[in-house]
Formats: sequence, structure tokens, C-alpha cells
Amino acid sequence: MSQPFEEPRRHFITGGCGFIGSHLVDRLRSAGQQVTVYDNVSSGKRRWIEGHVDEDGFLFVEADLLDREALACAMAGHDVVWHLGANTDIPGGSARTDLDLQNCTIATHNVLEAMRATEIDTLVFASSAAVYGDVPLQPLKETYAPLIPISLYGAAKLACEALISAYNHLFGINANVFRFANVVGGRMGHGVTYDFLGKLKRDPQNLEILGDGRQEKSYFLVEDCIEGMLCALRNGHRGFEVYNLGSETSTNVERIADIVAAEMGLNGVRRTYTGGPRGWPGDAPYVLLDTAKARSLGWRARHDSDAAIRIATRRLLEQT
Amino acid sequence: MSQPFEEPRRHFITGGCGFIGSHLVDRLRSAGQQVTVYDNVSSGKRRWIEGHVDEDGFLFVEADLLDREALACAMAGHDVVWHLGANTDIPGGSARTDLDLQNCTIATHNVLEAMRATEIDTLVFASSAAVYGDVPLQPLKETYAPLIPISLYGAAKLACEALISAYNHLFGINANVFRFANVVGGRMGHGVTYDFLGKLKRDPQNLEILGDGRQEKSYFLVEDCIEGMLCALRNGHRGFEVYNLGSETSTNVERIADIVAAEMGLNGVRRTYTGGPRGWPGDAPYVLLDTAKARSLGWRARHDSDAAIRIATRRLLEQT
Repeated sequence: MSQPFEEPRRHFITGGCGFIGSHLVDRLRSAGQQVTVYDNVSSGKRRWIEGHVDEDGFLFVEADLLDREALACAMAGHDVVWHLGANTDIPGGSARTDLDLQNCTIATHNVLEAMRATEIDTLVFASSAAVYGDVPLQPLKETYAPLIPISLYGAAKLACEALISAYNHLFGINANVFRFANVVGGRMGHGVTYDFLGKLKRDPQNLEILGDGRQEKSYFLVEDCIEGMLCALRNGHRGFEVYNLGSETSTNVERIADIVAAEMGLNGVRRTYTGGPRGWPGDAPYVLLDTAKARSLGWRARHDSDAAIRIATRRLLEQT
Repeated sequence: MSQPFEEPRRHFITGGCGFIGSHLVDRLRSAGQQVTVYDNVSSGKRRWIEGHVDEDGFLFVEADLLDREALACAMAGHDVVWHLGANTDIPGGSARTDLDLQNCTIATHNVLEAMRATEIDTLVFASSAAVYGDVPLQPLKETYAPLIPISLYGAAKLACEALISAYNHLFGINANVFRFANVVGGRMGHGVTYDFLGKLKRDPQNLEILGDGRQEKSYFLVEDCIEGMLCALRNGHRGFEVYNLGSETSTNVERIADIVAAEMGLNGVRRTYTGGPRGWPGDAPYVLLDTAKARSLGWRARHDSDAAIRIATRRLLEQT
């Protein structure tokens, strides 16, 4: 595995116990980087970083992004902030409408203020294709407009992007913002693949599909996601840069059901549908991103969307 | 003056003691509409609505947008919410970096939640050209991208637009969002015209200009701004709609100095410059909006940018 940086750096990772965060921790640690994880373990899991906690050069701080003093205190002395911590329960954000405001928008404001206070000038931010809203299936460039988010998750991610843009201009914080398509892999705890796997374990003969099954989105593997961020951090411009990350293909929900059932060795699963074009209020039925900007830096997703779903299913099956 | 609505409606105006808000109050009251002003009188002034406080059909609630209970309580029973309340001190928002987060983003979240709680489904929101960020002088359409705000004010306005977009989708709140160019007129308490007038009153021979004097922006009169909002509310679509409002011309800072000095009867004012392309950190040097979308509904600014500056200067001179 190649070095992600020419020299060792000190990385501060919010949400480092989460699905993407814990994979990033593994990757940076395997490359000899110093890592601090800052996580309140609300949606992430301590066991996903357990293997690192006694290592030299690794620190786990269990604390909340809304605790501004703890945040600035823990952040001091690092070179790069990876801000991955957020509410990850998108439908839940429609039921409890302050979740994304608190855990994404205000949390990101706190991260930016802590960076100012501790004089750290390099930020990586995990944004989302949810900022684009409900648009037809077509590869969207980073300059696509208008941005009409339909979930509070998407709205909060866009709010964070805007905050980061202003902090870049006003306070010189260099930021790479990544709008992810659907990231899949081991340890994930949300999403249609995870949902189908859980349902088919409980009842291998019947599968309830949220929506009409025609939703079609681009999926890509968590390792590809992390290599994309590392590549942009190494090769991209400083300043404020937004990159789409995803695979160049998409997979519809019926096909995901096929893949998950096949990987579980199930035949003749009876499918029922809750109906309607989306899985839940705020769910965008189509996601496909134009990743030419990130690819121009030398990265590309090594697995297409179908392969990513298949590999993620296998990992989830091995994991449990 | 024509009726802004076919039948009387009950209007709830946040920031109704402010520059734009108090003009809106006058306009709606003169058309026989019921009006409630909700304002904490932090940047607005009670005297601007003083003439209405004893009228039937008018109510003033002095309270803060961060007081969620007071807000929902006061909002109940209205038909339309005009959300104009915000931090209006843009440079101040760079010094106190939580001002815009609190008084714009979180305040707007509170307004949306209060609308849900009180089952009001029509919102008018005052956004700003500041969402576009630092772009060359060209008429920008509402679909212009990328949106790279450079002030915390602009970032917060974009955050609010995103929130409103999601509330429209999730909870059926119909919203007209207006991105204003620079609104000028009587009662204004910020901006270059106001600044020059104050400086020249204190010292009629010398004028310090913030920046290099080459900033050039589109100004339009507060009455034109209000007619634009009323026109869109009457003639536009329901749903989530974003409209630019402004005049179709622009005025540079040197020209503003000419106009203000001429209106004050001053000759030979010596100008000095703080230098640099912008007046303060976060100031976008160029603002010009394509208003074709709003004009397609039957509205246009009756005064061009130079005339708006001239009229605003006269009103400020008469007022003090």
C-alpha cells in the first residue's frame, strides 16, 4: 500500500468510529500516519477502531462535536482535519428535524472554529450527492445547479459546504469537499444493501422493497472512496475545492435485491413493494455523479456499482 | 396603490422593524392587510413601525427568533410568513462568527418549525446575492453555479435556502426565496451610501473609501424590492421558487461618492482609499443579477441603480 503522504502527518478524524471513518483510520495507520479519532460513538462503533487503541501514534477521544471546548482541546497539534462526523440516519432526520442542524451544520461550525483556534488550515469534508436533490439519472458535474436538496441531511451538507467556503475566504482554511455517491462496504449500518441483508436473514422467502424498486443510484466501495480523498489531498489544489466521488455506473434497487439474494444463496424470494418513486421522504430516486474532476487527478473507482454492491454484501455476511 | 392580494390576509413579518421589513409593513397596511411584526429590535427600530402600533389589524411582538416558544405562539393564525429577520451586519459576522449561524440559519430553522407547528404553508424568504460569492460583473441567473459564498452572511443565507428547499419537499411549505441585489432607501442603516453620508456629515472635505473604489454593484430601491416580492407571490408558482431581484444596471463606488456629494451640495471632496479590491473581508466586489425570471411575472425595478442611490441619499438626508 502506497504512502498517502510524503511525510508522516497528524490526522484528526471526526466520526472515526463510523463506517467510512474507521476504514480511513485503517488506511492511514497502515501507512504509518498519526491518527486521533474524535467520536461520540452514537452511530459508529468502538470495536471498529479497537485494534488501534493501544498503538503508539493513535488516540481515541470519546466526545461530542457539540462540546466545543473538548473539540478544540483534542484538535490542537494536528495537521489535517477529516470531518466525517454527522447524523447518518437520513430518514431519522425528517422525524427529528433538529438532528442534522445540530450534528451536521452546528457541528461543522464548531469544527471550523476549533481549526481557527488551533491554527490548523487543512480540512477534508465529507459531503454528499444529497446536495443536488431530486434530479433525473444523469452524470452531474460539481457545477450542476440549481441545488435543491430534498432531505434535511442534504440541506445540512449544503449548509456546511457554504460555511466552509466562507471560512476558506475569510480565514484561509484550505478545504477539499467531497460529494459522495452511495458509499458501501463492510461495517456499513444504513442503506438498501444493509436493509435487504437484514430482512432476508429474518425471512429468507420474502423481501419488502421500499418504493417501487426503480430507484437507481451509483454505488462505490469505501476503499475507493478513501483513495479518492487521499488522491485529491495529494494532487489537488489548495483553496476551496469540491469533488464528486463515485463509480461511473449505477445499480437499480431490483438489481441490488438480485445481488444480495444471490450472495446469500437464496432463490425464489418473493418481493413486495411499499410503492412510490422513493424509499422514504427525502430519498432522491436517482444518483449518478460525473467524477471527471477527481479522475483528472489520477484516481478512479476500481469497482463499478454492481461489483461494489456484491463486495459490500460479502463483507457484511462475513462480518456477522 | 393596488391591492397586493385579492382578499385580505394575515401577514407575519420577522424583522418587521428593519429597513426592508418596515417598508413592507407600510405597504401591506396601506392595502388593508392584517400585519404582525415579530422583531427583537436589535438592528431595526421601533420608531419605524410606531405609526402602526395603535391601529386595528396591527400587532407588534417584541421577541427573538431564537425563542422558539414565543415564535410559534405569535405565528399561530397567520396566512403568510415573511421571514426578513437576520443579522444585517455583514462585516460584524466575520468578527463574531456565530452571529449569522444563530440569527440566520438557526433562526430560519425555528421559523420553519413554527410554520409546521402552526400549519402555515406560505413563506417568503429574503435571501441575498451574497450566495453567489465572488464572481465577475455579469448578470447572474438563479441557476448560476457554483455557489461559493465568501461571507458568513452569504453562507448562512445559502444554508437557509437549502433548509427551506428540504422543508418544501418534506412538509409542503410553499416558499418564494428572493436573492436581493443591494437594496437601498430611507431607514437603511448599512451599506456604502449610508457610510458615505455619515462620513461626509462628520467631515465634508474628506471621504475615506473602503477598498480601491472600483467595486461595482447593482442597487435598487426598497419599494421596487417589495413590489417584486408581492408580484411573485401573486403571479408565481407555488412550491419552491428562487428569484433574483435587483435593477438591471450597476453603480461603482466612485460614482456613489459623486452622487452622495452632489446631493449634499459638496464640491471638491478629497478621496482616500483603504485599498484592495473589496471593502471588507467577505465583500464581493461585483454584484449584478439577471432578473428575467421575476420580470417574466410582470415586475421590473422602476428605478435604475444610479437613480436608486440618488433617491436613497435624499431620503436619508430628509430623515435625519
